[in-house]
Amino acid sequence: MEQREISQAVIGRLPRYYRYLGELMESGVERISSNDLSKKMKVTASQIRQDLNNFGGFGQQGYGYNVKYLYAEIGKILGLDIAHNMIIIGCGNLGQALANYAAFENRGFILKGLFDIKPELSGKLVRGVEVRMMDELKEYVQTHDIEIAALTIPKSEAIKVADMLVANGVKAIWNFAHTDLNLPEDVIVENVHLSESLMKLSYNVSRYRDEHVK
Amino acid sequence: MEQREISQAVIGRLPRYYRYLGELMESGVERISSNDLSKKMKVTASQIRQDLNNFGGFGQQGYGYNVKYLYAEIGKILGLDIAHNMIIIGCGNLGQALANYAAFENRGFILKGLFDIKPELSGKLVRGVEVRMMDELKEYVQTHDIEIAALTIPKSEAIKVADMLVANGVKAIWNFAHTDLNLPEDVIVENVHLSESLMKLSYNVSRYRDEHVK
Repeated sequence: MEQREISQAVIGRLPRYYRYLGELMESGVERISSNDLSKKMKVTASQIRQDLNNFGGFGQQGYGYNVKYLYAEIGKILGLDIAHNMIIIGCGNLGQALANYAAFENRGFILKGLFDIKPELSGKLVRGVEVRMMDELKEYVQTHDIEIAALTIPKSEAIKVADMLVANGVKAIWNFAHTDLNLPEDVIVENVHLSESLMKLSYNVSRYRDEHVK
Repeated sequence: MEQREISQAVIGRLPRYYRYLGELMESGVERISSNDLSKKMKVTASQIRQDLNNFGGFGQQGYGYNVKYLYAEIGKILGLDIAHNMIIIGCGNLGQALANYAAFENRGFILKGLFDIKPELSGKLVRGVEVRMMDELKEYVQTHDIEIAALTIPKSEAIKVADMLVANGVKAIWNFAHTDLNLPEDVIVENVHLSESLMKLSYNVSRYRDEHVK
């Protein structure tokens, strides 16, 4: 794939395009204009045209976008056509929810391993993948070409484990632990801080209550 | 709480301040300067001063911020000192992960009910809360003053369920379903689209690979 300089803001919007185009495909829609897509997605048509122009634009004036083609192209841009080996550290409810997430494999994420500290989970199969113990983790990442690790472990463990993973070749962390990881700049970190999302919700609900209950 | 006009960008950063201040408190730190907080949080000291000035500023020149006071004030701003009744719809792994999330109650979120369609889950206790069946949901929200509903159900169900909840008094949706909800403008929606987060990660990993493997 050729190199392009695209802002993280645009990148952040691509998954949503990908989702809408996937739904259009499922409903059998073959072409869509930027105006119709705009109405569906509730963003302006000019935003859509601008975003998609970053990739040379896939639309033909007056004909709209070819849904299937655009879906595939955005998939390629997002790297979803490439296989990424992935492990999940922490097999509590959240780790198992991620492991059972069916869309993973369709998008090139290959779940290779699951790790936990609880002996009673050892050998358990989740979506056909065996749970291993944490003391096997280091050797495992050294020998299995693991690119991505999802961390669903307590914050007290997360920083130490992330450091070890990165020292042993992991390139990216999908971090669900309630802490920032202090990793080298070339390590890719995607944080999902659920409690911060909940606090934003709390703020907006409290404000709403202030405004409506006088 | 008095009304203040604060941008969503600042609101979005408050939970992170709250988290750092909580950790400082746990480590027994009583005061911190904006410079020291800046080093810890890896944002500029001027950003910190600007953000906190939105609330009248809590620092005294030369003395730094009182950690405990600032923590409590930000908590109040975020509405964490107010009780919010909440239900979770969908008791799969993700729903149970949310239900078991211990920090909820500390932050004023009172888990009142859990709902699912699977008869085998009926009556099961998760963190002391009974799982109810979906056909009881409508009457339940009408009679239990529920403000927030977390949706961890398939996208095919989410829109219909969200519409019903809102029609029956729910004010805010914490949406984990892989779809946008088309709700009235005064309904608060906080989306957590895990697959979009994963796609951003995929994009950055693929780019990294392009740059490093020639």
